[in-house]
Amino acid sequence: MYDHKYLHEFTTELFMSIGCSRDDAGAVASVLIAAELRGHSSHGMIRIKEYYDLWKTGRVNVTPDVKVVHQTPSTAVIDGDRCFGMIAGVRSMKLAIEKAATTGTGWVATKNSNHFGIAGYYAMMALEHDMVGICVTNANPLVVPTWSVSRYLGTNPLAVAVPALQEPPFIADFATTPIARGKLAVSEKKGEKVLLGFVQDAEGNPSDDPGILRRGGGMLTLGGDRPHGSHKGYCMAAVVDIFSSVFSGANFGPFVPPSVAYLPVPENQPGEGTGHFFGAMRIDAFRPADEFKSSMDHWIRTFRNAKPIKGETRVLIPGDPEREAEEQNRESGIKLVPAVVDDLRALAATLGVEFREK
Amino acid sequence: MYDHKYLHEFTTELFMSIGCSRDDAGAVASVLIAAELRGHSSHGMIRIKEYYDLWKTGRVNVTPDVKVVHQTPSTAVIDGDRCFGMIAGVRSMKLAIEKAATTGTGWVATKNSNHFGIAGYYAMMALEHDMVGICVTNANPLVVPTWSVSRYLGTNPLAVAVPALQEPPFIADFATTPIARGKLAVSEKKGEKVLLGFVQDAEGNPSDDPGILRRGGGMLTLGGDRPHGSHKGYCMAAVVDIFSSVFSGANFGPFVPPSVAYLPVPENQPGEGTGHFFGAMRIDAFRPADEFKSSMDHWIRTFRNAKPIKGETRVLIPGDPEREAEEQNRESGIKLVPAVVDDLRALAATLGVEFREK
Repeated sequence: MYDHKYLHEFTTELFMSIGCSRDDAGAVASVLIAAELRGHSSHGMIRIKEYYDLWKTGRVNVTPDVKVVHQTPSTAVIDGDRCFGMIAGVRSMKLAIEKAATTGTGWVATKNSNHFGIAGYYAMMALEHDMVGICVTNANPLVVPTWSVSRYLGTNPLAVAVPALQEPPFIADFATTPIARGKLAVSEKKGEKVLLGFVQDAEGNPSDDPGILRRGGGMLTLGGDRPHGSHKGYCMAAVVDIFSSVFSGANFGPFVPPSVAYLPVPENQPGEGTGHFFGAMRIDAFRPADEFKSSMDHWIRTFRNAKPIKGETRVLIPGDPEREAEEQNRESGIKLVPAVVDDLRALAATLGVEFREK
Repeated sequence: MYDHKYLHEFTTELFMSIGCSRDDAGAVASVLIAAELRGHSSHGMIRIKEYYDLWKTGRVNVTPDVKVVHQTPSTAVIDGDRCFGMIAGVRSMKLAIEKAATTGTGWVATKNSNHFGIAGYYAMMALEHDMVGICVTNANPLVVPTWSVSRYLGTNPLAVAVPALQEPPFIADFATTPIARGKLAVSEKKGEKVLLGFVQDAEGNPSDDPGILRRGGGMLTLGGDRPHGSHKGYCMAAVVDIFSSVFSGANFGPFVPPSVAYLPVPENQPGEGTGHFFGAMRIDAFRPADEFKSSMDHWIRTFRNAKPIKGETRVLIPGDPEREAEEQNRESGIKLVPAVVDDLRALAATLGVEFREK
């Protein structure tokens, strides 16, 4: 088990060793470690090797000039200058929060960025300012629109964080697909089939084969098939894509660059890099802050006290599982799988950074 | 078949006869007829009798003082004074558009309202101003959070309208459940079972019984069951509920008043009436308007040209089916089912308004 503070320190040094400033390296580390703490290791330390490879192939700029290219009192567009996504992400959300402080709400669209980790991290930045935080991002295309075999959408997550008074905050952070891509890889390694409703084959037939993406298949949007509302998941994923790309001038849908170096960048890209969208809303722009937060407490307690179905002991509030994982992981440390430790050991050796294995 | 202009005129007179101003009656009529034109008759003329009954039992105020009770440069809260939802809806969206014109974006939370028809109507109001429109509303509780048997959520729709240049606009307008409640009623009348993933029984077991809501069952959120991502549909529905209620001071979840008079208003309501939330974003607050709209054209054409699955001929853009229905219904007229005609005939007679049957 690795102490999260140690992993933060190690990750910061690693990114500094390839040329990032201490602040920028620290931002990358903070988002990756937050993912580990919150139980989403698919967005944690496992990404470091991929990020390194992206830098190595020239797709990431470690000394970016991240800047505002357009703005109004409540909006802005930020150009990430091909930075690691966390650099643009933190900068963009900070600007949204600043604008909200003066205008009530702030909205920032970001282009020319890269994979930025968990969307929830940025939404949660708003909480300490008594603001609601919103964050979406597009991602490399693996997902099909309803009735199509074309992989034109990413898993396109949406995060919303709402502060409460005595209760922990409400934090929804979810992809617009039934499952994460990582779950397909796990099932495939185990030799297991997956449930129908997750993927389809190259012709658009239902499939239970977790390896079907390598044979022209595609992931389905939330809902699974048309009768179960996949067109609503398609709407959601499309809205996330449009907010991330058309608002900022980043690439949309099929043109979003892959987050791994071994896949080629699409040709004829109409935009710049990956796109994100951030929002911050001062709660006292709507109601006195304590009244808003008390009302949120009431909402949370009501739903937490909903009656469970037979066989379950409780009803969860969005954010509960991640908060509980974080409490435990802060205490007991973060477990890294052997393959990730191997990657980190090799990378540390290459870059001349010390890695203390546990 | 009824000409949509005639139905608008008739509906306006009907609502004027119970005391609405011409403007207010016209707003109610416009939203109801828009639903009929766009092929969503579940939100059209069928509602008139229900609205009348709500007024008759004192739950709707036909001479409301709809007013702004809180505001900042980019936000406001509107109190609907127990009006028909359309009155508050149109007023709120207009205010969001005004605020966006000066500040870049405008966000209005609305309380003390009632059923307001199709959310898409309000989102679409932004389009002629070269703005993106957003609208959500909560609704009477029929839907269960994941792992619960408590009907604590409405079908809570979300609408987003985005203007394009030469292409028709992108208009997503969808509930956060796999199906509308009306589909259950239709299946029940036909004596048919429904697919698994739409409803559960009183203990939380999967059910294919479309009448299960009358026996303690509940509708499921988009995703259906936990393995297929119902917790993501729950997140969506919860976000819609919070934006509609906690932001404005309207009732949340289980406390939202029913949209029909034969169901009682919940006890111990923490807020006022039904709640909505509206947003308008000037597209040139992000990019030059023509650049934004050209980019949207490119998005729409790309997705429209996605390859269909075997057996389908085309891939749809959100808003395509409704636009095509509207083109046809404007031309050929609106078909009303006999039960709706019966209701309208009786109501017209009661209120002394002429109804010309076709």
